[in-house]
Amino acid sequence: MKTAIIDRSRLSRTLLVGSVALVIAEASLETVPKQILRHMSVIRHAQKLDKKPSEVLLDRSYHHSAMVTGRLESVWKRGRPDIVHFALVEALSTPLYLKNKLAVYVYTINRQVILIGANLRIPKSYFRFEGLMMKLFKDKVIKSEQDDRILLELLDDVPFKHLIKNIARSSKSIGLSSGGVSSTAYEVVSKYIDRFDDCRCAIVIGGFPKGRFSDNISNFLDNSYSIGKITLEAHVVIARVLYECEKILFLT
Amino acid sequence: MKTAIIDRSRLSRTLLVGSVALVIAEASLETVPKQILRHMSVIRHAQKLDKKPSEVLLDRSYHHSAMVTGRLESVWKRGRPDIVHFALVEALSTPLYLKNKLAVYVYTINRQVILIGANLRIPKSYFRFEGLMMKLFKDKVIKSEQDDRILLELLDDVPFKHLIKNIARSSKSIGLSSGGVSSTAYEVVSKYIDRFDDCRCAIVIGGFPKGRFSDNISNFLDNSYSIGKITLEAHVVIARVLYECEKILFLT
Repeated sequence: MKTAIIDRSRLSRTLLVGSVALVIAEASLETVPKQILRHMSVIRHAQKLDKKPSEVLLDRSYHHSAMVTGRLESVWKRGRPDIVHFALVEALSTPLYLKNKLAVYVYTINRQVILIGANLRIPKSYFRFEGLMMKLFKDKVIKSEQDDRILLELLDDVPFKHLIKNIARSSKSIGLSSGGVSSTAYEVVSKYIDRFDDCRCAIVIGGFPKGRFSDNISNFLDNSYSIGKITLEAHVVIARVLYECEKILFLT
Repeated sequence: MKTAIIDRSRLSRTLLVGSVALVIAEASLETVPKQILRHMSVIRHAQKLDKKPSEVLLDRSYHHSAMVTGRLESVWKRGRPDIVHFALVEALSTPLYLKNKLAVYVYTINRQVILIGANLRIPKSYFRFEGLMMKLFKDKVIKSEQDDRILLELLDDVPFKHLIKNIARSSKSIGLSSGGVSSTAYEVVSKYIDRFDDCRCAIVIGGFPKGRFSDNISNFLDNSYSIGKITLEAHVVIARVLYECEKILFLT
C-alpha cells in the first residue's frame, strides 16, 4: 500500500537538509460533486466559464443555493477554493519555498493530494488559478510548457497517514488549529524545526473556512497548537509559521 | 488644501494609541481607462460581467492586448487588482487590524485614496472583491447594509504628502522597497514602532507587480528599507511587518 502510493507519483523533488513540509489539510477544493451537477446555478456558471458542470470548481460564491438544497455532507467546509488559493500563494511566495526548503501538499476534503514541484509560479489572479486547478482535476498532471517538467500532480484516494509518512516522509506532524494548545508561532517552530534535521516536520493547517480538523486528520497528528489569541485565517498562520521557520533555517 | 481633503472624507476611525498606518502605494487598481474602452477584449469582458466597459477593473489577465496596443503610460505597473486584493486581505486579516491598531489606505496609481473603516470583512473571493471595488469606483462610498456605517470611501486626486500628513496623520513615513537599505522586518519595526506613541508611523508598501516607487512617492518618504535578501511580494512584506508590529504593540 505504502509503496503503491509512492510509485503512483511521478513528481519528485529534492529538498535541502533542514526543510519543512506544509500540509494544507481538508482543503476546500474540489470539482462540483455529482449530487448537484444538474442544479441551475451550477449549469449557468459552467456555461459562463465555457466548461462542463463536472469540470468546474465547487464555489460557494456561485453555488451556495445548490450546496444547501443538495444537502452536501460537511457543507460548511466546502466550496471555498479562494481559501486554498490564498494559502498556496502565501506559502509559495516565501523565500523558504523559493530556496527549496519547503514542500507544500494540498490534502483535499475528498482525500486527494496535490503535489507541488519546485519553482512553481502559482497565479495570483484567481481567474488563472481557477483555470489551472480545473485542468489539474481533469488531467491529473500539469507540465511546464518550456521543459515538460511536472509542476503539479493530483493523486486520488490517499489516506492522510500515508501522505505524512510516505509522501511527505515526515517523522512528526504538528497541527495548527484554534483547538490546539495555546502557544506562539515562534515557540512551535523553535520546538520542532531544526536546521540540521533531515527528518522534516510536517506542519498541518486547515484549508477550510471554519471548524476544526476531522478525526481523520487529528488522530494522526502528534500535537496540536493554537498560535493566536483570536482565530487566525489559514493564510495568516502560514505566513507567520513559515517566517519563523526561515529565521531558524536561514539564521536571519 | 489640507483642510479640504480632510473635510471631503466622511469616513472616520478612532484608533488606539500606539497604532500603525499601512499605505499600499501606487496600487495597481483602477477602472479601464478611456484610451482603451473601445478595445474588443475590454468590451467582451465587460459583457461577460454584465457591466459597462468603463465600470470594469483594468486587469492584465483579460486586457493585456488592449493595454499594450493602447500604449498606456506606466503599463508595467497597471492592471493587477489581484495584487491589491492579496495585500488588503493580508492586512485586514491581522489581529492588529481586528483590534483597531491598524489603519489601512490604498493609494492608487491614479492618486485616488481608498479609506477603510473598522471591522471590514474584505472578501477573499476575487469575484466578490471585484464587485465591491467596481461599486466603490462608481458610487465613491460603500455602506454597511446593517447599520448604514461607511465601510469604504474613495477620494479623488489626493497628493501623496496629504495622505500621509493629513489623512493618515503620520509624522514619519517609511518605505519598504527592494531599492531600500538592507534590513529586516524586526529591525525596521523595532526602530519606528512604539507602543506608547500616538504619532503613528506610516509604513508604505508598493501595490504593483514590479519596479520601484516613482519619485511622487519616494520623495516624501523619510527612509526606505529592503527587508528581504530576495525581492518579496507585497503581501509577504505586509504579513511580516505587521506580525513584528504586533509583537511590539501587543507584547506577544
